[in-house]
Amino acid sequence: VASDQTLDVVRAYHGAWTCKNFEEAAHFLSPALIVEVPNNDYPSKDTFAAALRGFGGMVRNVNVLAAMCSDDEAMLLYDLDAEQLGWLRVVEHFTVAEGLITRLRQIHDTAPVRASGLASSGA
Amino acid sequence: VASDQTLDVVRAYHGAWTCKNFEEAAHFLSPALIVEVPNNDYPSKDTFAAALRGFGGMVRNVNVLAAMCSDDEAMLLYDLDAEQLGWLRVVEHFTVAEGLITRLRQIHDTAPVRASGLASSGA
Repeated sequence: VASDQTLDVVRAYHGAWTCKNFEEAAHFLSPALIVEVPNNDYPSKDTFAAALRGFGGMVRNVNVLAAMCSDDEAMLLYDLDAEQLGWLRVVEHFTVAEGLITRLRQIHDTAPVRASGLASSGA
Repeated sequence: VASDQTLDVVRAYHGAWTCKNFEEAAHFLSPALIVEVPNNDYPSKDTFAAALRGFGGMVRNVNVLAAMCSDDEAMLLYDLDAEQLGWLRVVEHFTVAEGLITRLRQIHDTAPVRASGLASSGA
């Protein structure tokens, strides 16, 4: 049951930002959010939410390939298609506490992101 | 129950290759294995098993950060430390049928792998 709730939160967050409802998405991020992504540093929820808005606004399509969870953790695997970038395969690993995402790890290939000139946009 | 069996197969495969038991690891790969990794192309189980042996032999440490499953799929998130390369964060997504891995997707940053000169070793 706890696992299902974890995945519900993660799916709601993912569904919100991929539909460009960035304010709604930010509501699922804990004020104590810890972000682990390649290349960039987001010391706060607000800096990450701003980057999500910037990059998310360029995303044209998202195909979720896998979604699974274990207790307070969940993982999503998806392909996204963004302006300037094209298709990129992404994994996110989430930790959830009390309905909020407290840690978000992103794993993807940075080579195409750098090549597109988007590396500073938070991708 | 099916999910638990999926994760058992994946953990056994992962445990085998990270302990450099490459023959044992290959026993968990289906003859019909489909591999999706950045940059490289493995048209058969045997070509992938050979690459695993080559790269796996250079791995000094592996820290599994997350392992989860859903029906016939499982995902692992881990950091590995390899000769020439250093630490790299990796995600693998597996599909399992009848006790064998039929599809293996790997997601990681190729930039440090290219920089190390290991890109042709299958990482």
